[in-house]
Amino acid sequence: MAAEQDPEGLAAARPLLTDLYQATMALGYWRAGRAQDQAEFELFFRQCPFGGAFALAAGLRDCVRFLRAFRLRDADVQFLASALPSDTDPAFFEHLRALDCSGVTVRALPEGSLAFPGVPLLQVSGPLLVVQLLETPLLCLVSYASLIATNAARLRLIAGPDKRLLEMGLRRAQGPDGGLTASTYSYLGGFDASSNVLAGQLRGVPVAGTLAHSFVTSFSGSEVPPDPMLAPAAGQGAQVDLAASVETWLERVCGHLGLGVQEPHRGERAAFVAYALAFPRAFQGLLDTYSVWRSGLPNFLAVALALQELGYQAVGVRLDSGDLLQQAREIRGVFRTAAAQFGVPWLQSVPIAVSNNIDEEELARLAQKLVSVGGQPRMKLTEDPKKQTLPGSKAAFRLLGSDGSLLLDVLQLAEEPPPQAGQELRVWPQGARESRTVRPAHVEPLLRLWVKQGQLCEPLPSLAESRAFAQQSLHRLSPAHRRLEQPALYQVALSEKLQALVDRLSARGAL
Amino acid sequence: MAAEQDPEGLAAARPLLTDLYQATMALGYWRAGRAQDQAEFELFFRQCPFGGAFALAAGLRDCVRFLRAFRLRDADVQFLASALPSDTDPAFFEHLRALDCSGVTVRALPEGSLAFPGVPLLQVSGPLLVVQLLETPLLCLVSYASLIATNAARLRLIAGPDKRLLEMGLRRAQGPDGGLTASTYSYLGGFDASSNVLAGQLRGVPVAGTLAHSFVTSFSGSEVPPDPMLAPAAGQGAQVDLAASVETWLERVCGHLGLGVQEPHRGERAAFVAYALAFPRAFQGLLDTYSVWRSGLPNFLAVALALQELGYQAVGVRLDSGDLLQQAREIRGVFRTAAAQFGVPWLQSVPIAVSNNIDEEELARLAQKLVSVGGQPRMKLTEDPKKQTLPGSKAAFRLLGSDGSLLLDVLQLAEEPPPQAGQELRVWPQGARESRTVRPAHVEPLLRLWVKQGQLCEPLPSLAESRAFAQQSLHRLSPAHRRLEQPALYQVALSEKLQALVDRLSARGAL
Repeated sequence: MAAEQDPEGLAAARPLLTDLYQATMALGYWRAGRAQDQAEFELFFRQCPFGGAFALAAGLRDCVRFLRAFRLRDADVQFLASALPSDTDPAFFEHLRALDCSGVTVRALPEGSLAFPGVPLLQVSGPLLVVQLLETPLLCLVSYASLIATNAARLRLIAGPDKRLLEMGLRRAQGPDGGLTASTYSYLGGFDASSNVLAGQLRGVPVAGTLAHSFVTSFSGSEVPPDPMLAPAAGQGAQVDLAASVETWLERVCGHLGLGVQEPHRGERAAFVAYALAFPRAFQGLLDTYSVWRSGLPNFLAVALALQELGYQAVGVRLDSGDLLQQAREIRGVFRTAAAQFGVPWLQSVPIAVSNNIDEEELARLAQKLVSVGGQPRMKLTEDPKKQTLPGSKAAFRLLGSDGSLLLDVLQLAEEPPPQAGQELRVWPQGARESRTVRPAHVEPLLRLWVKQGQLCEPLPSLAESRAFAQQSLHRLSPAHRRLEQPALYQVALSEKLQALVDRLSARGAL
Repeated sequence: MAAEQDPEGLAAARPLLTDLYQATMALGYWRAGRAQDQAEFELFFRQCPFGGAFALAAGLRDCVRFLRAFRLRDADVQFLASALPSDTDPAFFEHLRALDCSGVTVRALPEGSLAFPGVPLLQVSGPLLVVQLLETPLLCLVSYASLIATNAARLRLIAGPDKRLLEMGLRRAQGPDGGLTASTYSYLGGFDASSNVLAGQLRGVPVAGTLAHSFVTSFSGSEVPPDPMLAPAAGQGAQVDLAASVETWLERVCGHLGLGVQEPHRGERAAFVAYALAFPRAFQGLLDTYSVWRSGLPNFLAVALALQELGYQAVGVRLDSGDLLQQAREIRGVFRTAAAQFGVPWLQSVPIAVSNNIDEEELARLAQKLVSVGGQPRMKLTEDPKKQTLPGSKAAFRLLGSDGSLLLDVLQLAEEPPPQAGQELRVWPQGARESRTVRPAHVEPLLRLWVKQGQLCEPLPSLAESRAFAQQSLHRLSPAHRRLEQPALYQVALSEKLQALVDRLSARGAL
């Protein structure tokens, strides 16, 4: 895996990636003499996506990148001036020109943390004017990242820890960066790799890919490779004409499968040979361009066996259409008999990869059987129209049992002392009418201080570290909450003081 | 509206925004001696999105930007080398380093054209290796842009030509560029403006916005504005203490509405005054932070009437929750009585804007009544699992009746002569079993040559020009096809020669 090439956000969002009403409000604050007032906003969600009981927090790294690079250049200020009234006081634009995030402080759940409804993912505090300008870009950076990471985590739970999951959604992404974000956070949430090369280059996501149908159809079979010779894997011995060797093997394979030697498509075979010449150590056959049974499979076997003679082992096959599970089972059967017939044991267990619109349901069906799955996380953000928010600056703690399992999360006022391990605590679960008591064996603070007055307080974990942390976090969640359909809801509760404040403000109609 | 600031694609996609399998296939072609083979691919869709019978073609400008900027820098080639086998021939990487789009030709539907299933949006031809690398980024750039433009066009059809439609989806977009793309192509498809400032700066989209709830809640009412004085609109006469004037007007307004003068929220009023001081010519009241009837509306009226005394006219109010239509009707009633009571006729017709999760159905309900609507186009791409594609390089024509109405689109082989106006033509509608004849009064070629051997052939229209073209195109579509639900499907037909080729290839099992 490559290291991250863009730690300082050259590919990060630009400062004007914000809603105009943030800029008009900034002018309003400035005119009211309130630009430097201290303010805080929190990002949180009201309902877990995809019908689940958990979400993964993600996007913090992009937020920190954005903050550190945040600065309005002359062109930015000029554009804002063109969008604001022409008689706006020029001193406002001078204020914008001098703006940076040196007064901004960020607390957040570590990247890859479990997150529950109402618990802030991010708390941003600092001068009112700058904090207002940051609201839209930070929301944009956190909400989609968390959604994708959560979706990926769900697919990983379905697939189990050992299956290889590849993200291949770039073609259908919401524009270039929609794709970059999706690839990055699919990996964070538990995928193994992405087809998106830019995500590899800029974010260090492992990249993977072999060939598509267009490669296969581009060969007619009449092409003459300029150099069909391939040296043995060990480097010793004479080169072999791979194309000729494949034709010899094809006869044996067709005999074994009961096919006529004219049936497998010549162009497909030429494409496989071309690919094998370029990637003798990483040959994968895409089986379903013409006919899996009459063409793709025999052509793959002929090339794989010709490579095998030279000491190379094919890495697998891929299916991209039809009933993936049924075909995979039948292909496995053919591999078993061919392995015996030709005395090539590894052929029994050659990986079968599948792709093509794989959603949670299809993955559940496939996961029992297959080794590798490619697909695109699906996005759907369920929103609660209720707009009430909890007042004041809050602290959040996770209470754990003696076995390390998660009991509940508590939100309280920032000035309250933290819950103590071993001490009984009365809390008010959100949405419940009654309080309850809980005695945690361990207490973990949820929000960590990452940026203080514009300065990074501790190194951000790498993407791969956050990915590992996400999987650890998911492991500690009880199966009842981890369940993807109709899960038991995980409780988020308010402290007695916070609940009392909410009650007081509600009675006054202020919420 | 600002001019476009990024014509050459500084904000365009990067060259490695592609799937790794495109790069592995490139190596395969290169190893097979086929890098310079001439190749062509077409981008098209199989089914119109959102259950409609039309789509708008969009994204060409981004494609042209991408092509013109396409060049693999050293860092890009080094990254690809790290992702490919370590024994890959170094000459391949030299080939990549020298790669550009000087051999690439692009034909495409003009931006904003009506597009129908099977008709290519884009035909890209050139050397096989480079065309393969371009496939993913161009797909990514065209499909999402067309989807958003189509969605925006549907919402515009529902709203009618005169309502003002604002796109405000940035907070929920797929990352920064997902938002930029959505804002740009919502405008192309028929929206009037976006809240996204970056879309204004980089793409020339008109931007709009006023204030959000957070501005209102940030004021308690105890703030003392450093300068509450406002000069009359005409510039003549003494400055007035706006805050004091608003308090005077509030008493009259509350008397008229039968409210106690203590009921309207002080903080909300302070926020409105602060906003009015900053934007005396563009004051808009966001009414639903506390109570529309007991607070938002009287506070708005007090500020609007105080501004009116100084010669300023408020631009309107906005509602962001609840039953938008019902509230809007009642507010209109209050504006009418207040206009009469206070002798301010323009108050009768002050614009009422609404926002909050407005989909096609809600918009249809609202459009009867309201002037301005903000919302986010919803995306859903329906896909057909059928993967068969039509063979060969194709030309496409639109046949029109004598009144300029659209009859059908015809796909034919590139070498066939074009259909002639006034001459009968036999064609095979896709999905039908029978041929039909058609005698067009006019014939329009659909695909235009934009880039030839890497050179732009004619200037691209501006975004605003494409937007106007899109609306003209939609006007020519018959109401039966334009209908958003259960529309009559518009026919796309094959020429006799193309149909014969398809039949021949199908019989041979090659499709």
